[in-house]
Amino acid sequence: MKVIVAGGDGFCGWATSLRLAKSGHDVLILDNLSRRKIDIELETNSLTHIFSINERIRIANNLIGKINFQLIDIAKDYQKLVNIIKEFKPNAIVHFAEQRAAPYSMLGAVERRYTMDNNLSTTHNLCSAIVDIDRKIHMVHLGTMGVYGYDDSYGEIPEGYLDITINRTGASDDIIFPANPGSIYHLTKVLDHQVLQFYRKNWDIPITDLHQGIVWGIQTKETKLDNTLSNRFDYDGIYGTVLNRFIVQALNKHPLTVYGTGGQTRALIHVDDTAECIKLAIENIPNGKKVRVLNQVSETRSILELAEFVSDKIGGIIKKYDNPRHELSVNRLKVSNEGLKSLGFKPKLISEELLDDIVSVAESMNMSFDVSKVLNSPKWA
Amino acid sequence: MKVIVAGGDGFCGWATSLRLAKSGHDVLILDNLSRRKIDIELETNSLTHIFSINERIRIANNLIGKINFQLIDIAKDYQKLVNIIKEFKPNAIVHFAEQRAAPYSMLGAVERRYTMDNNLSTTHNLCSAIVDIDRKIHMVHLGTMGVYGYDDSYGEIPEGYLDITINRTGASDDIIFPANPGSIYHLTKVLDHQVLQFYRKNWDIPITDLHQGIVWGIQTKETKLDNTLSNRFDYDGIYGTVLNRFIVQALNKHPLTVYGTGGQTRALIHVDDTAECIKLAIENIPNGKKVRVLNQVSETRSILELAEFVSDKIGGIIKKYDNPRHELSVNRLKVSNEGLKSLGFKPKLISEELLDDIVSVAESMNMSFDVSKVLNSPKWA
Repeated sequence: MKVIVAGGDGFCGWATSLRLAKSGHDVLILDNLSRRKIDIELETNSLTHIFSINERIRIANNLIGKINFQLIDIAKDYQKLVNIIKEFKPNAIVHFAEQRAAPYSMLGAVERRYTMDNNLSTTHNLCSAIVDIDRKIHMVHLGTMGVYGYDDSYGEIPEGYLDITINRTGASDDIIFPANPGSIYHLTKVLDHQVLQFYRKNWDIPITDLHQGIVWGIQTKETKLDNTLSNRFDYDGIYGTVLNRFIVQALNKHPLTVYGTGGQTRALIHVDDTAECIKLAIENIPNGKKVRVLNQVSETRSILELAEFVSDKIGGIIKKYDNPRHELSVNRLKVSNEGLKSLGFKPKLISEELLDDIVSVAESMNMSFDVSKVLNSPKWA
Repeated sequence: MKVIVAGGDGFCGWATSLRLAKSGHDVLILDNLSRRKIDIELETNSLTHIFSINERIRIANNLIGKINFQLIDIAKDYQKLVNIIKEFKPNAIVHFAEQRAAPYSMLGAVERRYTMDNNLSTTHNLCSAIVDIDRKIHMVHLGTMGVYGYDDSYGEIPEGYLDITINRTGASDDIIFPANPGSIYHLTKVLDHQVLQFYRKNWDIPITDLHQGIVWGIQTKETKLDNTLSNRFDYDGIYGTVLNRFIVQALNKHPLTVYGTGGQTRALIHVDDTAECIKLAIENIPNGKKVRVLNQVSETRSILELAEFVSDKIGGIIKKYDNPRHELSVNRLKVSNEGLKSLGFKPKLISEELLDDIVSVAESMNMSFDVSKVLNSPKWA
């Protein structure tokens, strides 16, 4: 297939682009390189060295498969986007081109507004272009488990829809799971989903929304093949994700930074699984009447469990910090991931072996660790 | 009170600004005059002559009350918006600054993208500015009945929230009424509502979302006081609303243009009631934990009923046209409007007397009627 990966220079986008190319797909990455620019703005860095996109592309074409790149800001340059899609004629577009850090979206007015503008505009521009060019193009959007909120009063979280009874009439319905976003970032994914639902309903575009858990890990089968293909490794309080951060903290003798009680339960997935799930979603086109929602999740764990796991394996003390977020201090969370499993997904669970993989990368990069970036999350209000 | 009316130069915004000034409030209109500019772009016109905003303001200050104007594009000039709010120190902001025609939003990529960008950016910029300046400012947003869709399977439409049982767990909840937008325009109001919910939840801003029916009529008590204060009167297939259009069609010997069966039922409100409802919403600040949703509706009628009413009173034949919209060919609709009634709202129902009011305006303006604009709605797909 021919696949456009919007945001293919980022953490999940790069891993996915390589997996798709390795699987024989013809990949075109579109990216404005914003993730690299935000590093400069926040004075943070990936622990791994990130080679230039064109160097990455050159090596990937030698070692992996067919993969190209075009520099474009999808949120701003609509006509260029239309021209690229018309020329490339993709079967599917995977949409990672969104600002993806909840803490970043809560820093202040500039970041709130950037996250809203960028995420909505990229999603809507892609949908709008598909309407005008070819309504058979499969739109694959990266959502987040965060759209569901973290309240277990509805029981196990189903895949996007909730079976209800309207109390007044006694009628039943299968509705979009009521949204409960916890940050501006999560809000944008709620809005994206409503946009996708309308485009599905009015123009019959095949659409998949992947509600993903927190991604951990660094490398995939493909990014390991050459130093030049290495993925990002963020450890700071804004872009770093929880398990990766604990590992780096432990290796650098920093207390493991648990926000609040640590009783918050989250859904998790390894970045190699992310790449695999997206490959499965693309290779299996949805045929239902509604947007297909798949929970892209391998398992659920509480923050404290994760900290204890890291502390046991690597060492380091656990320290509790005031929670900068507005959220439940303790929550349970059960998530269905039957959709992707039915397509062949076999989740990789958190294990010592997968942890070692990160440790070996992190150990060789300790020179780059900047302790001042560990607790730089903004307060939510 | 000090009230900012964003979009106060438009059809409902102008009527509301005058009502608020008449009631003793200190009004500041913010507008980019986009509605006037769209007339030029679409080569349409209001049947009534619209005086320049500064001329309107001058006369309103003489005849009605304190009212000022600043030219600003709220979607684009955030810093100016912040400066204006800081200086004026409003108690409430009424937000009409959105592209409000469903057919316009379905014309093509330019109009889809403009409607999304403008409506979301204005809503989000206003909310974001309130967070940073004064979280006590009451945000009053104009929503639409269209966010509910027009399916009566949930029974009478409640005010924003729906009492349900989760089938799997048996638990009850009061959720945001599941959205079912019928156009990009309606979609933006669905998205706006989610934005408002998040700002209410995270930053405790007092917020009212007014889900309004189709507005008909032209003049209010205040706009009648002087020719200079006259409100807009749109009769075209894009910005004209249904009852007003039928009246003008009848007076100009054009068949009354019923789309589809005419069995579509809609909620309606007279523009004088719109102004009154918003005054009531502003003078009664919400105190609940959620966004206050009020259905701003006087009655419901089917399109065919409206056509027959006009045909009976004024004459003219009824003709059915292919429906350009994707919608149910027939629907019932019952709507609760208890919230505004409990604040003192007394709906003006469609009557011969109110009709005469429009007829007298329309008759004097027949010279301006352009038959080529009567059926210029785009097809929905």
